[in-house]
Amino acid sequence: MGDPFAGMRTMTADLLVKVRETAPLVHNITNYVVMTSSANILLSAGASPVMAHSRKEVADMAAMAGALVLNIGTLSESWIEAMVLAAGAANQRGIPVILDPVGAGATGFRTRTVMHILRQVDVSVIRGNASEVFSLSDHSVTTRGVDSSLSLSDGIVDSAGAIARQHGCIVAISGERDLITDGDRVLRVANGVPLMTRVTGLGCGLSAVTGAFCAVAGEDLLAATAAAFGFYGLCGQLAFDASDRPGSFYVAFLDALYAAGSAEIDDLLDIRQDGSI
Amino acid sequence: MGDPFAGMRTMTADLLVKVRETAPLVHNITNYVVMTSSANILLSAGASPVMAHSRKEVADMAAMAGALVLNIGTLSESWIEAMVLAAGAANQRGIPVILDPVGAGATGFRTRTVMHILRQVDVSVIRGNASEVFSLSDHSVTTRGVDSSLSLSDGIVDSAGAIARQHGCIVAISGERDLITDGDRVLRVANGVPLMTRVTGLGCGLSAVTGAFCAVAGEDLLAATAAAFGFYGLCGQLAFDASDRPGSFYVAFLDALYAAGSAEIDDLLDIRQDGSI
Amino acid sequence: MGDPFAGMRTMTADLLVKVRETAPLVHNITNYVVMTSSANILLSAGASPVMAHSRKEVADMAAMAGALVLNIGTLSESWIEAMVLAAGAANQRGIPVILDPVGAGATGFRTRTVMHILRQVDVSVIRGNASEVFSLSDHSVTTRGVDSSLSLSDGIVDSAGAIARQHGCIVAISGERDLITDGDRVLRVANGVPLMTRVTGLGCGLSAVTGAFCAVAGEDLLAATAAAFGFYGLCGQLAFDASDRPGSFYVAFLDALYAAGSAEIDDLLDIRQDGSI
Repeated sequence: MGDPFAGMRTMTADLLVKVRETAPLVHNITNYVVMTSSANILLSAGASPVMAHSRKEVADMAAMAGALVLNIGTLSESWIEAMVLAAGAANQRGIPVILDPVGAGATGFRTRTVMHILRQVDVSVIRGNASEVFSLSDHSVTTRGVDSSLSLSDGIVDSAGAIARQHGCIVAISGERDLITDGDRVLRVANGVPLMTRVTGLGCGLSAVTGAFCAVAGEDLLAATAAAFGFYGLCGQLAFDASDRPGSFYVAFLDALYAAGSAEIDDLLDIRQDGSI
Repeated sequence: MGDPFAGMRTMTADLLVKVRETAPLVHNITNYVVMTSSANILLSAGASPVMAHSRKEVADMAAMAGALVLNIGTLSESWIEAMVLAAGAANQRGIPVILDPVGAGATGFRTRTVMHILRQVDVSVIRGNASEVFSLSDHSVTTRGVDSSLSLSDGIVDSAGAIARQHGCIVAISGERDLITDGDRVLRVANGVPLMTRVTGLGCGLSAVTGAFCAVAGEDLLAATAAAFGFYGLCGQLAFDASDRPGSFYVAFLDALYAAGSAEIDDLLDIRQDGSI
Repeated sequence: MGDPFAGMRTMTADLLVKVRETAPLVHNITNYVVMTSSANILLSAGASPVMAHSRKEVADMAAMAGALVLNIGTLSESWIEAMVLAAGAANQRGIPVILDPVGAGATGFRTRTVMHILRQVDVSVIRGNASEVFSLSDHSVTTRGVDSSLSLSDGIVDSAGAIARQHGCIVAISGERDLITDGDRVLRVANGVPLMTRVTGLGCGLSAVTGAFCAVAGEDLLAATAAAFGFYGLCGQLAFDASDRPGSFYVAFLDALYAAGSAEIDDLLDIRQDGSI
């Protein structure tokens, strides 16, 4: 059958072209800190962002979107209800739902909220750092604020796979090397630079771009998620070539999301299959 | 009597000087996504932004402002009440009220909210894209998210004029060419560049700058609105000369709002009268 | 005993190294306009920001932080309760609390809120401009929006000292020359450039950085506050060397917060003791 991932470069370039040609509407119910940057990141990459959180309109908005992105960064209770309503509408229409469990594990409120959402609706992709994602399992890890306190070792592949199978979704863990699994296949992405952690909202922005790629992907959301991670990370590498300081790095990163294409993907994309679990 | 619009270059330069000299306070009740950029856009242009949305203070704040800007981008119900309270206080003192109907037409909630505000208070200027503005009339158009799905053809001048007369306000429609009318006179502005749609909040920022220009304008808010559109658009052109990528374009745009003056206005401003309706 | 402030350059450089080495968690309950910039400013300087405002988690979050920053810029009532809850948790554990009374004096709601917070909890540092700070005393001054309408004259040192003694905290007033006092000692900081007032959130960002420096300072919060002011201001001077326009100035400012170190502190830091009150 051949390796289905030999073609990741082509697939990533194709999905990027589709995003830019169709400008999928990505509905974000996200935290206050990153609303602006998520919108700008989506616009730079070619997608159309919309933010709406009122219970009076989220179902309408989600129903017309290509993807729904839920992010629990600055939570309050009415927003949780809105997330569940919006995701319910997305589920009914088969629209992919991305969940970013920002700070899960740091407070009981955040961890319980994520578990509540996962019980109420179907999520397509959970994207977070290792300590956030593992707060959703029985592993006892402590999250410090919203930064990851776990590095991504090989030993956690099994745990990520177990969470993916439990919730019937893709688990995508950002770290020095990213891990993406549906509980069966495992992909690793080796793009990105550490300076991305010194700009607020770049993790959340990746969740949004994952939504944009999933919106145009059809069936294979595992590959679409990896493509989003790879493209996003290589734009970070391009930006780092322009500047190694966070203010000008972020500007260059938005420029790269807008301008990078198949040539940069051919040069830099680093996505590998790890074998099945 | 001569053409009252031959002097638009002088008037625009004069209003800009007034904004910079008097730094009018612009009270924004606006959406989360664009609060930062609206504040920075106003500061760069020379005005003084303030954001306040609590029902406990909006009337006090609006009463001391030079203009009030209402923007329904990320609505929830308590904010609607605050908008009506603030606009009532502004109306009592003759302070101009700018309404930006972000995403009107996209959901019934947004359309109903705009109609509710227009029934409760007097609005001086409605600024939006074509599909947002026409959701306020009987024309059946569909807004996709918060982007415009209508291009601005000559055929819509009559409709814009009808909305302006119905609500006793100026209607200002952003597009490839902008249309500004009070239901009698019609102005067209041909400044701006398409890349402005790839940075979030630049339309909302224009509503804010329109507020700043109206704050210092005296009686002729039609000309002040056109002046704001023209100046804002030519700053986009100056920024595009500096960069054709959205991250660095936005930085250059803020720089242009701060630095551009009468020389750039003389070179680039393109505002024309269209004859009366 | 010698002058305890001859060593401010060394102390500032040492505190900066500590911030970068330990990345203290700074919990912000702040206004919507500056959440993104406060997060980026903290990240650039080396700290770890977290934003959380729900009554269901603020006490948990504050208890694990190195400092808590309260900012009343875009208030609503549930946020005030959250601020008091969070500060109560911080007080119990001896975590420094920074209060930024944005726009106090502009509306009765804001002034009353600040007084309410000061009655309910212990604040370590009040940081604002002169008209905000003096709205907390019996001086009758009028705040225009959120900008300072008072310049910082010598005559106000006594008033600042009285407020500091009344609330048992440090009062830090930003202006052309900054004034920092605990009611006994008085420090003046002469760093910074006027263009910093043309970028939204730079005052609020200074409150956040003051939190980061206090988090690693141990006992002497007066010196830590002055060190934060001096370092922050000199980064503004470095940024102004790069650009005199606000868009690119802000980018350069973030870069400076990240890159500046003991060499720049030795060159530029200007903190002087004024003698006791």
